[in-house]
Amino acid sequence: MAVRLDRLPYSVQLLQDQAGLPVFRYLDQRLLPGEVRFCDTTDWRSVVDAIKVLGVRGAPAIGVGGAAACVLALAEVGGGLEAFEAAAEEIAHARPTAVNLRWAVDRMVTFVKQQAAAGCAGAALVQEAFAFVKRMEEEDVATNRAIGLYGASLFGQGSRVLTHCNAGSLGTVRYGTALSALYVAAEQGKIERVYADETRPLGQGSRLTSWELSQVGIPVTVICDNMAASLMAQGAIDACIVGADRIAANGDTANKIGTYGVAVLAAHHGIPFYVAAPLSTFDFSLPEGSGIPIEQRASEEVLPQPIEGVQVHNPAFDITPAHLITAFITEQGIFEPDQVRNLASAD
Amino acid sequence: MAVRLDRLPYSVQLLQDQAGLPVFRYLDQRLLPGEVRFCDTTDWRSVVDAIKVLGVRGAPAIGVGGAAACVLALAEVGGGLEAFEAAAEEIAHARPTAVNLRWAVDRMVTFVKQQAAAGCAGAALVQEAFAFVKRMEEEDVATNRAIGLYGASLFGQGSRVLTHCNAGSLGTVRYGTALSALYVAAEQGKIERVYADETRPLGQGSRLTSWELSQVGIPVTVICDNMAASLMAQGAIDACIVGADRIAANGDTANKIGTYGVAVLAAHHGIPFYVAAPLSTFDFSLPEGSGIPIEQRASEEVLPQPIEGVQVHNPAFDITPAHLITAFITEQGIFEPDQVRNLASAD
Repeated sequence: MAVRLDRLPYSVQLLQDQAGLPVFRYLDQRLLPGEVRFCDTTDWRSVVDAIKVLGVRGAPAIGVGGAAACVLALAEVGGGLEAFEAAAEEIAHARPTAVNLRWAVDRMVTFVKQQAAAGCAGAALVQEAFAFVKRMEEEDVATNRAIGLYGASLFGQGSRVLTHCNAGSLGTVRYGTALSALYVAAEQGKIERVYADETRPLGQGSRLTSWELSQVGIPVTVICDNMAASLMAQGAIDACIVGADRIAANGDTANKIGTYGVAVLAAHHGIPFYVAAPLSTFDFSLPEGSGIPIEQRASEEVLPQPIEGVQVHNPAFDITPAHLITAFITEQGIFEPDQVRNLASAD
Repeated sequence: MAVRLDRLPYSVQLLQDQAGLPVFRYLDQRLLPGEVRFCDTTDWRSVVDAIKVLGVRGAPAIGVGGAAACVLALAEVGGGLEAFEAAAEEIAHARPTAVNLRWAVDRMVTFVKQQAAAGCAGAALVQEAFAFVKRMEEEDVATNRAIGLYGASLFGQGSRVLTHCNAGSLGTVRYGTALSALYVAAEQGKIERVYADETRPLGQGSRLTSWELSQVGIPVTVICDNMAASLMAQGAIDACIVGADRIAANGDTANKIGTYGVAVLAAHHGIPFYVAAPLSTFDFSLPEGSGIPIEQRASEEVLPQPIEGVQVHNPAFDITPAHLITAFITEQGIFEPDQVRNLASAD
């Protein structure tokens, strides 16, 4: 199997226009798999909107996207710190569950204030902030490749792996987290097939994970979310791997709605359940998962045509308790849930 | 809460046209909830097609529909037994998983042959077969009300109940099986809310269960199939109830894909999981669930727009092992899995 990682695009990237001004480029994920369209914007508000409507999605991608939006805001206000910080606050609130967004925006604000305190201002300050985001992008790609290398070690020959949502190249700058592990394992000839939960209501599995795996040349089968259980019962799944939007200090993990159900099913069938995420996803300020805010989204995502008298419940995430997670795969190695607290003290 | 059962239509019905010829009328379930359209046909092949494309669906409804199709076939061939039996065989194969279809067609064939052997022929034979289906319809309605009465006894005050697919009025002649229990319980003031799994890929929960519950006036919330687990973890579900397409002699139960996953989740959370079905759903010729054929359906149901290189797995049913089922609710009472074998000897 030829593994064509060169066919994975950059999902988010900060670029410069001909005048040297920052431009944010993202692959609009709402149009995939039908259309591969890159959008350029110089307006930080457009980035916030793109994050809200899931044009840009995936915890690491919205982290870098949020930082890039800060650079656009800094350029717009000409380096004025007060307006910049107000914009940054708005950017950090684009979506509530993923911690990477807040983490990346906070890093950016701290950096800009340090630079300003050191006398950097105006266009030079924007240029420093731009370079900071480019380093974040490189850091994300390197982190993802490290996660991939560690993660691949967990898979045996001929593995058939279930994944939920898209913790792939499309949810990061490039390569992904959970899917990065599958890419490296596929390069090592270990992956027989990936089963992608379609991931209702927005189809990140059927539209995005399926698309990027097929681009790369990995055999992939899309299933409805409700089909995973019977595949497990038939012995067709060797392992499950997912990403994460926020991980509490005890290892409880917020990820795309449906992740918790997959974890329960995996435990019931004795199948390992892995969470792949950069250390920036861990929120050691939260002792456990119950403290993670869960975004509720519009009913139209589930029922496009409302039915009179029928309500809809549409949480975007759920919490998987640490005891259902076999191991966390990070850029610094593989950790069992009871080792997560040690990561906190090293933070 | 006013429970308006009068608002439940007959889903399938055999009628007579002005010339006294049999006409099959069904509510085309593919168009719900947007349109309530009844279709009339005198061609048994149209009934087979309607069953194949799920215009008529639900094990009890396709049983009666299959028997009605036999009457149309008998009328078409003018009472000729050989051609009638050939048509009946084709009708019985419209869908493979539900046992009620084969059961109802076999009953009809046996009845017609008995009548013919007793000298009944031509239009008189068609008339007898017609009356036989009308008795089956009445029997189905009475069975469903009995299931409802027994089932309702299992629910406490303020119950919040999860159901999967549509084991409702729309899947039977009228009233349903699992939903019949909820209707009687609602009449008794016990139902706080029903959560309806949308039931991908065909949306029997989001389109059909939600519609019929809202017609009747029962509070209903549609969720994606992958949201049931987190509701259970939050303590928002007191019980689960589903229908069945075929139940093996040991209690293993084939039902709509996703049922097995709900049963595993219910067991994990200590929530009772009930299967409501008429005795005609039990197939005592099969010792266990592994012998039940599982219908595989077209990939377009899951991915309407194919993606190059992406496969789809689309089983229509799964098997829930008996040990995950708290009790079976039938027209003859409530039985635990280890009591099912006794039903077989009384069969």
